[in-house]
Amino acid sequence: MNTVLAIDIGGTYTKIGIVDKNGGILDSAVFSTKSKEPFAIYLKELISNIKQLLGSLNTQDKPMAIGIGAPNANSLTGKVENPPNLNWGKETPIVKAINEALGLPVYIANDANASALGELRFGLGQGMRNFVVLTLGTGLGSGIIVNGELLLGEHAQAGEIGHVNVDPNGRYCNCGLQGCLETYASVTGIKRTVFELIAEMREASPLRSISFEDLTGEAIAKAALEGDALAIRAFDITAEILGRKMADTVAHLDPEAFILAGGLSKAGDILLKPVKASMEKNLFVAYKGKIKVYLSDAPRDAAILGPAALAWSYVS
Amino acid sequence: MNTVLAIDIGGTYTKIGIVDKNGGILDSAVFSTKSKEPFAIYLKELISNIKQLLGSLNTQDKPMAIGIGAPNANSLTGKVENPPNLNWGKETPIVKAINEALGLPVYIANDANASALGELRFGLGQGMRNFVVLTLGTGLGSGIIVNGELLLGEHAQAGEIGHVNVDPNGRYCNCGLQGCLETYASVTGIKRTVFELIAEMREASPLRSISFEDLTGEAIAKAALEGDALAIRAFDITAEILGRKMADTVAHLDPEAFILAGGLSKAGDILLKPVKASMEKNLFVAYKGKIKVYLSDAPRDAAILGPAALAWSYVS
Repeated sequence: MNTVLAIDIGGTYTKIGIVDKNGGILDSAVFSTKSKEPFAIYLKELISNIKQLLGSLNTQDKPMAIGIGAPNANSLTGKVENPPNLNWGKETPIVKAINEALGLPVYIANDANASALGELRFGLGQGMRNFVVLTLGTGLGSGIIVNGELLLGEHAQAGEIGHVNVDPNGRYCNCGLQGCLETYASVTGIKRTVFELIAEMREASPLRSISFEDLTGEAIAKAALEGDALAIRAFDITAEILGRKMADTVAHLDPEAFILAGGLSKAGDILLKPVKASMEKNLFVAYKGKIKVYLSDAPRDAAILGPAALAWSYVS
Repeated sequence: MNTVLAIDIGGTYTKIGIVDKNGGILDSAVFSTKSKEPFAIYLKELISNIKQLLGSLNTQDKPMAIGIGAPNANSLTGKVENPPNLNWGKETPIVKAINEALGLPVYIANDANASALGELRFGLGQGMRNFVVLTLGTGLGSGIIVNGELLLGEHAQAGEIGHVNVDPNGRYCNCGLQGCLETYASVTGIKRTVFELIAEMREASPLRSISFEDLTGEAIAKAALEGDALAIRAFDITAEILGRKMADTVAHLDPEAFILAGGLSKAGDILLKPVKASMEKNLFVAYKGKIKVYLSDAPRDAAILGPAALAWSYVS
């Protein structure tokens, strides 16, 4: 069977997998990205994991090409550039490094741009021509589809909605700016909000016994679903800010829909309902009632479908 | 000579003209839009002005088509819909009305979208593939060019950057929302800022002797150029907010450039310099040093070049 090798590099985990033309995943693996380590150490572990994966494949299933989704990847240069959530430095020529190690053609896209391609080819974006994917993970990534194609922009860097400004005097962002959307609307963002609320509120909460490092999006979602007032308020604040900024995105792009993906989207209705309400309230009159918001239905290990879609767009 | 008839409907003035294929203006006229009046009165005056213009033309210069740029125009329906700055009601079928009155094919676009087409065909946008036009007039309009074409969006309503949010608790906007960019960064916006500063500051200023209704963008620019502290501060505040929001637009679209047009852009460097500084300061690292900002070099009566470019895109 014809396949591609897909690599999804997240701030926390890296996922790799062998993917067929219909989005079927033949085999996959996950390892820690260890974002505080330099690239050389990461590359060694990546290649080792890939070789292990390839070693267990039947010969006829060997991949024809490699697709990579990575934070702050530049599809024109093949480099990862200034990633705020990875300690890799200014410019990392990852396409060249992987091509040299494995001898296959390698294509790269910003991780969230790859996700948008994945939704377009395999997911909820099938049949849509104008939509925006927001990946709510360690950071907030975005991929914009216009007229059925990925919006690249003049320097192939379009779609950094995680760095629109919420508050000029707001939270410090890893990118060096202050008040970026991803410092509020992401797994890390809602954790920061929980810690603000622990300081501000009086109510008991199971979240008070967890350190910042140990706190997860899942723990906050679980507490909210069990009625914890602090966790519910954290989701409401996150959703209010995200919905307001989604209305700004609509005022630029007039999309058919948003697709929310990434770890935080797994929280479901406790995120989706207040996001929809906040967006709708803040929409300019021409857009009211017209813009849909979906949660990605891709299973969590399907993050590799984005880079797979990228690779398939070249080999098929 | 082959020509088109161009109609630019602004919140304050309506400009009409006969335009050839190279953007040459054979003849033109201006009249007050009287935005507080209903559409029926406006239409009568518009047709009367057009007939007068056509009456003085040589037979061989008669237009082949009509292009209209109007606030909140929907190019799909041919209607002006919910214009916050015109008292025309919910839906005005202006294309049908003008076609019936004059018997020529009529095309319409949002006024700022038309401006972007004008810059692309006749102005600073020639040779650029990705840029954003911001028209700083009574309101703030925008037109977005992506890959050499006007970005329409799913409902042909893309590019309402005047209604992105600056402050959820900010100024009331004619559109019903609060804190929209156009309430700060437009001729009306800087007037509102001047009046805030008159209340806040102690310094003498020539602007203190002018009523809100009588105050113009030109008067504020003139005072600033003559060193008036209040007027200079009004430009700095306006530019800081506009530049910050332009950085958000870059985080969506990654354009090559912005082109600032409309009445306020005529202020020149007292607007442009602080706008550039504020945008640059707020840009995400991937964009720093890469995005140009120009003032449109179109003369003020060239607003009709936008709708002319729209009409030419159909007849040539």
